[in-house]
Amino acid sequence: MKEIRGKIADITKRRGIYWGAYEIYGGVSGFYDYGPVGALLKKNLLDIWLEEFVYSDGLLFIDAPAIGPDSVYKASGHVDKFTDYMVRCISCGHAFRVDELIKDFVDNPDLLTPDEIEKIIEENDVRCPDCNGKFGKVEEFHLMFSTTIGLDKRGFLRPETAQGIFINFPTLYRINREKLPMGVAQIGKAYRNEISPRQGVLRQREFNMAEIELFVDPEEKFNEELIEDIELPLLTRDGFELKINAKEAYKSGLANGYIIYYMQKILSFLKSVGIDTSKIRFRQHHREELAHYSKDTWDCEILISNGWTEVIGIAYRGDYDLKRHMESSGADMRAFRKFEKERKIRINKIVPRMEILGPRYKAAAMKIARAMEAMEFEENSVHGTLKIELDGHVYDVPEEAYEVIDVEKKVSGERFLPHVIEPSFGIDRLIYSIIEHTYYERQDTGYKVLRFPPRLAPIKVGILPLMAKDSLDSIARDIMKELRTAGINGYYDDSGSIGRRYARADEIGVPFCITVDYQTKEDNTVTIRERDSTKQKRINKDELKDTLKKLVAEEILFEEL
Amino acid sequence: MKEIRGKIADITKRRGIYWGAYEIYGGVSGFYDYGPVGALLKKNLLDIWLEEFVYSDGLLFIDAPAIGPDSVYKASGHVDKFTDYMVRCISCGHAFRVDELIKDFVDNPDLLTPDEIEKIIEENDVRCPDCNGKFGKVEEFHLMFSTTIGLDKRGFLRPETAQGIFINFPTLYRINREKLPMGVAQIGKAYRNEISPRQGVLRQREFNMAEIELFVDPEEKFNEELIEDIELPLLTRDGFELKINAKEAYKSGLANGYIIYYMQKILSFLKSVGIDTSKIRFRQHHREELAHYSKDTWDCEILISNGWTEVIGIAYRGDYDLKRHMESSGADMRAFRKFEKERKIRINKIVPRMEILGPRYKAAAMKIARAMEAMEFEENSVHGTLKIELDGHVYDVPEEAYEVIDVEKKVSGERFLPHVIEPSFGIDRLIYSIIEHTYYERQDTGYKVLRFPPRLAPIKVGILPLMAKDSLDSIARDIMKELRTAGINGYYDDSGSIGRRYARADEIGVPFCITVDYQTKEDNTVTIRERDSTKQKRINKDELKDTLKKLVAEEILFEEL
Repeated sequence: MKEIRGKIADITKRRGIYWGAYEIYGGVSGFYDYGPVGALLKKNLLDIWLEEFVYSDGLLFIDAPAIGPDSVYKASGHVDKFTDYMVRCISCGHAFRVDELIKDFVDNPDLLTPDEIEKIIEENDVRCPDCNGKFGKVEEFHLMFSTTIGLDKRGFLRPETAQGIFINFPTLYRINREKLPMGVAQIGKAYRNEISPRQGVLRQREFNMAEIELFVDPEEKFNEELIEDIELPLLTRDGFELKINAKEAYKSGLANGYIIYYMQKILSFLKSVGIDTSKIRFRQHHREELAHYSKDTWDCEILISNGWTEVIGIAYRGDYDLKRHMESSGADMRAFRKFEKERKIRINKIVPRMEILGPRYKAAAMKIARAMEAMEFEENSVHGTLKIELDGHVYDVPEEAYEVIDVEKKVSGERFLPHVIEPSFGIDRLIYSIIEHTYYERQDTGYKVLRFPPRLAPIKVGILPLMAKDSLDSIARDIMKELRTAGINGYYDDSGSIGRRYARADEIGVPFCITVDYQTKEDNTVTIRERDSTKQKRINKDELKDTLKKLVAEEILFEEL
Repeated sequence: MKEIRGKIADITKRRGIYWGAYEIYGGVSGFYDYGPVGALLKKNLLDIWLEEFVYSDGLLFIDAPAIGPDSVYKASGHVDKFTDYMVRCISCGHAFRVDELIKDFVDNPDLLTPDEIEKIIEENDVRCPDCNGKFGKVEEFHLMFSTTIGLDKRGFLRPETAQGIFINFPTLYRINREKLPMGVAQIGKAYRNEISPRQGVLRQREFNMAEIELFVDPEEKFNEELIEDIELPLLTRDGFELKINAKEAYKSGLANGYIIYYMQKILSFLKSVGIDTSKIRFRQHHREELAHYSKDTWDCEILISNGWTEVIGIAYRGDYDLKRHMESSGADMRAFRKFEKERKIRINKIVPRMEILGPRYKAAAMKIARAMEAMEFEENSVHGTLKIELDGHVYDVPEEAYEVIDVEKKVSGERFLPHVIEPSFGIDRLIYSIIEHTYYERQDTGYKVLRFPPRLAPIKVGILPLMAKDSLDSIARDIMKELRTAGINGYYDDSGSIGRRYARADEIGVPFCITVDYQTKEDNTVTIRERDSTKQKRINKDELKDTLKKLVAEEILFEEL
């Protein structure tokens, strides 16, 4: 398992997929650069994500800032709760996340108190992995990067893109013409100041996310037609590992309908970007493991050399976020639910007793009486002194100054807090998983190949003249220009033997290579070579552009040529 | 001029292009949200940018982190030099950038010392724009957002994406197989903690950039074929405003060849995204105005309601950045220049005098002699005591222990620091300019329209059933699904009159609307309506997808249908 990690570390660095950032300054752990191949891989992956999750479902796509003020992250709960426990080595001073140190000794390291953690460290004589020193006391470490906005306003770098969507709910709901369900998507960087990230690209301090917040009316019936007849690999919180038909999973109430809907979509998406579907499972969080905002969460885990790894989470966040922001900001974060037909409800109204109000309030009595008449209460909720605010005064109206009557009122609907289902994608982890799952070595030569699907491949085509002379090179260069103009990302390569050039292309997952040879000059044909089968076909140069467009868009397969 | 700003503020907020961020918490100036229309507009703009600048020229595209360590921004000069002068109002405490307060009284406010600034404020009785209070002393204000990485490492949010490219030069140069010119592009957020940003989206604290660093060999002859026969609108540093043919501009030495090359590309790019080319000029910086790293800079300015506004900069950065990072990090940031043919150079070598070394160093004498023989020096640079490091010892070898000889050596090339040409795009300012330039009101109705080119338009098509009944609605919905699957972003709208629905589409620049009417049911045709001409044509529903694809990719024009 470690062997593949080494091979991938080699290929990603050497061929420009990604590498540790700030190398010339000794590196800073938790930060990575995507190189020329990796940045395009990420872009293509996100474009496919947009097509499959956003455009095809008609979601709203927004882009909010990464820096946010204090107020937002106080309301979201991050200022108070987004911390890890850490310990420092007394000898070398290095700091470590506690949960990783003690995970072999307890089941749920995240649920322990500092005292319990210290006990476990002592009992098991857990030592510093770097110098074998002893650890000091458990400390709390805040995971948000903080900064100062303007002269003195505290701000944070978002730890998730989600809050930028929640706080905009009223505006987005209006733009969506007050319709639910409403899905809002966002792609962007998020930031977590991990204490000592040591898992390569899998645990970064600055990372790429793609998130959807689907706002739904919890009382609206779920549209069962969204559920397909496909098999889902689940691991429930009770420990049951099962393959279950999606329709059956929905009917048995295993999870919310939209969670199942997104499981389906995720399976098909992961397959389309090269993930081995036999190495995917949806694992339900244990109740104690749930984040503070979540009622139910299913992680989409992918099996890689590090074991089953959380890559995507689907959380049922309920109304937690909108409620918190409504309480903190005072803004109305509710949606409006229209009743199918007008409803009659019973409310309490007030009849002022002028014989008491008059002598008591004199000139103001009429105004106070009108204000009292305008008030509405739930049934049986009016007692005692009423506080009436009027023209800047507050009048304490005693109980004997009014009577309560019970009346009927017609209402067309009601305001409520929508619930949220959140599929959240860790893009860097997904990229790593794709690289592991698409990596193989040719049986005959041992050459390394990345089996990127054409639509995902960063570079679609290499154009290789058999020899860099006899005008084969200029023909190849002209083809490159033509293809680039048509939006097909290709490169020209005349260096080394054809076999070596194919091998170079294979290593960065180029799905097709065009070779220009002497026959090209005779009959205007070139060869197309497909990466995985290594088969070659001759086609007319004039058809090249259209054929490649279709191959790259996966509208036709190479075998169909 | 102010009128158009008000209209655009209305449309951008109301229709979801962008709005001030953190509204429910009272807003934080300098931060904006791109809404559902604006986020797609930005994405399409960046995709066009990638096509026209990156893919078509075969540049490398990378993605580096936004958070960087101290060391990088010390070396780049930002820690020392990236500051503004500010003053605080003694009465209300509000802070202001000095240059904006005094720009009416001096020509180059950025070049003054604090004392000079205070004098100007006093002489002209400059007061607080908010409360008319007096100002205190001039203070220096650092424009980078700072943060802490890990427990205690100072870090900054990048003020430009450029440094992420420079520090990776050695790796990128290797990946590019040591070829120059090498262009490297990056798109991403950058951050400047402006004191009190008051110019809406034109001056943001978190903003979007697209940058190219083109690394060239300053001794390599520029390829004149890159220069086209087109007219450039220039404003030189001497104050000459001229329209000049690019070839002539190049020949007369007005600017570096690559700067002119990028002026051409920028003109064509801006035109393709809807900018009025009569409102573009390239303004050369005055010598005093140049940034600390630049030898020559031309700003591409666009005329909007705020006046001529810098949107893109093309800076000749020389070897400033690579040199600084080489000095600071110790890494070799040089490229290799191969001589056309091997050159012979004269160097000094050393002949050890064993008769002196032997008695002096005994057993080590032979090793020392060999080390001396291996040394090479420039001519006439060897004198006095030589320091020879060997097995951890340093031996001071006196002058009498060696002779210097003059020999000839063959060298195949030399290492040098490449120069950098940097076209740097302010994406938010460009988006604002596009909105202003594409905005118009219909002469007959006064309805508002954004004339987005189809390729740029966030939403490509509205699908409108004439009536939401008689299965016209279901036909329209099916069309929407089909188009979405084909990657054409469209929406369904059955609310209000057709005229109103067209008007709604026009306001967010939807270039085409499809109407499904009763004739559709008879002969399977629908109408396509083009936004600007408001002309309609009937086409067969089965041809819709392919026709729209071509219209949206701007491969055919509506008139050609």
